[in-house]
Amino acid sequence: MAAEQSMELHEAYPMTGGDGLYSYVNNSSGQKAVIDSAKELVKRAIVEKLDKEILCSFKTFRIADLGCSVGPNTYFAVQNILEALESKYQQCHQIPEFQVFYSDHSANDFNLLFTSLPQNRNYYAAGVPGSFYGRLFPEASLHFVHCSYAIQWLSGAPKELMDKSSPAWNKSRIHYANSGDEVVRAYKAQYHKDIEQFLQARAQEIVCGGLMVLIFPGVPNGTHHSQSLPSMILELLGSCLMDMARKGIVSEEKVDTLNIPIYGMSPQELKEAVEGNGRFSIEIMEDLPLMIHDHAVSGGQSKIDTQAFVCHMRAGLEGLFKNHFGERILDVLFESYRNKIEENSSIFMSGKAVNSFVLLKRKLSTSKLAS
Amino acid sequence: MAAEQSMELHEAYPMTGGDGLYSYVNNSSGQKAVIDSAKELVKRAIVEKLDKEILCSFKTFRIADLGCSVGPNTYFAVQNILEALESKYQQCHQIPEFQVFYSDHSANDFNLLFTSLPQNRNYYAAGVPGSFYGRLFPEASLHFVHCSYAIQWLSGAPKELMDKSSPAWNKSRIHYANSGDEVVRAYKAQYHKDIEQFLQARAQEIVCGGLMVLIFPGVPNGTHHSQSLPSMILELLGSCLMDMARKGIVSEEKVDTLNIPIYGMSPQELKEAVEGNGRFSIEIMEDLPLMIHDHAVSGGQSKIDTQAFVCHMRAGLEGLFKNHFGERILDVLFESYRNKIEENSSIFMSGKAVNSFVLLKRKLSTSKLAS
Repeated sequence: MAAEQSMELHEAYPMTGGDGLYSYVNNSSGQKAVIDSAKELVKRAIVEKLDKEILCSFKTFRIADLGCSVGPNTYFAVQNILEALESKYQQCHQIPEFQVFYSDHSANDFNLLFTSLPQNRNYYAAGVPGSFYGRLFPEASLHFVHCSYAIQWLSGAPKELMDKSSPAWNKSRIHYANSGDEVVRAYKAQYHKDIEQFLQARAQEIVCGGLMVLIFPGVPNGTHHSQSLPSMILELLGSCLMDMARKGIVSEEKVDTLNIPIYGMSPQELKEAVEGNGRFSIEIMEDLPLMIHDHAVSGGQSKIDTQAFVCHMRAGLEGLFKNHFGERILDVLFESYRNKIEENSSIFMSGKAVNSFVLLKRKLSTSKLAS
Repeated sequence: MAAEQSMELHEAYPMTGGDGLYSYVNNSSGQKAVIDSAKELVKRAIVEKLDKEILCSFKTFRIADLGCSVGPNTYFAVQNILEALESKYQQCHQIPEFQVFYSDHSANDFNLLFTSLPQNRNYYAAGVPGSFYGRLFPEASLHFVHCSYAIQWLSGAPKELMDKSSPAWNKSRIHYANSGDEVVRAYKAQYHKDIEQFLQARAQEIVCGGLMVLIFPGVPNGTHHSQSLPSMILELLGSCLMDMARKGIVSEEKVDTLNIPIYGMSPQELKEAVEGNGRFSIEIMEDLPLMIHDHAVSGGQSKIDTQAFVCHMRAGLEGLFKNHFGERILDVLFESYRNKIEENSSIFMSGKAVNSFVLLKRKLSTSKLAS
């Protein structure tokens, strides 16, 4: 359980709490669209891939939502899972009790999460604070894990990006779309390390035959980093910061030392990580609609709703920028970002992005895992 | 699971959160003294009363602290339990993993609880929001329950105390030491209903052979309500409110409609409730040192540290008074309370109080429980 002890060392930038203008609660409609389209896939996962032995042999069925943030999307996701399970349970003699673990960094607004839990829930709810790059649950204690829009967040930015003497020094940039290969290599290496730890921890926590749904934004297989839409979007935010540095509003050094710990993986990269881990089989791997397009395009045409898009980005990233630059720059930064997005709206057509839905099943153990 | 659905209807007056002057964190040294003296009894409970079959047959040992508030006492209590368990586990082939559930009302400051969890903990931590007068956990999922200084809080004040047409109308008072028998009867009835629900829920959640420690302040067997120190202390606070009503600072009607939902039970009353429930055996029942005396008496002599005592009371009750009267009266109320306590310090000698430590063991089922 050594991983448990160090888990809070991982960087944590929770979604903006409360219910204000820039709160995650009021700016997560994009995620909900993804969850809605994932709904049918989750149903299919449970109907087709959940073995009857797993279903009927436990008196308590335990579900975890990792990277749950503060709702309401996490409640919708859990409700979807429960509805599919309850329908499938007609095969068994007895419906078990359900226990749902909502998990996120300890800096997440659990107070809001707990006070807004659905009143008529038919499960026992618990919150679990900590990083999912370490162990969060006892061995073989979970039957279904859901993790939506979370594993694109690395445990932290690679240290060499801030090292002036390193070829991976990422000067004047906060991400990698416009960076050299060394920077991208550093991000990739961090991703590989993190996803390995993620899969290793879950392999221990999930019962044999248990399922895990991963939903994440990334890039199509073979995309060059300069064409990654998730990164292009972040780079525009970086260029706003550099504009502010030139005006003396922030120091350039502060921009140099910020690197957003997000990596846009390809489905192939996840596949390789799962195969490398060896404890899970890939049962479903499909593309979901692109949230970022849905969100940015208003009325089905090419007009981008920049205000909604920027609010959405701000809800997800505000904590990180506040932590690094202080609160006072936020309004200026995101106003400038809105203009920059309007000027560069063509990136939503030229950039490459994909939303992936992956269903993993914990293989039956042939050898005992070290715990 | 119907109880689960309505559990948030119970009144919740969390301890004051944060870490300010009147926060629970900074005013719970009295509780810590009780925990320290309970430490040896918890050890004895585990050494003498925890069956080897319970100890060695579960891969995960699950502990719950009910009414945990925000720490640090809950961490000390859990640490005590774990140390005793780990020492006893030398009898088994393998030490299991531990999962600890910190539970309190959803209005509790779980954000503070989660960010101040011990860094070097050797257990998986979770938070569970909700009232312990309903179900909080799946059936037979807990092995050890700890509940310290919490079951004296009723699920709410009896409604008839606020009914002008009832003989139990508790006019001008907020508790029962100076009230008639009808008021006391209403409190007793509420207590009986609540403790029955508490025991019924725990009987379902705790595995057969599992243990539950209850630590609570109350009165010695056979104490007349007019001699109850816990109630006398609360009545003095009520008399401060009546003074304020006479000065027009609060309305008298507001005082009439406040009744503090705390009941000082006797050990005998708990014993009868446990026997009535029938699912637990009483393994240990002992008196602990009196926190209220320790806390109120400075330097081992009769001089009462009124400031510390009032801070302690304020930390526990502020939420309730704020909710009923608004924040603006708090400073005046507790300043006046300090004077009142100084003038009436003799009640600490004349009033009767007891701190009880009770260890219950979940009996082996002879018939299946409805769940």
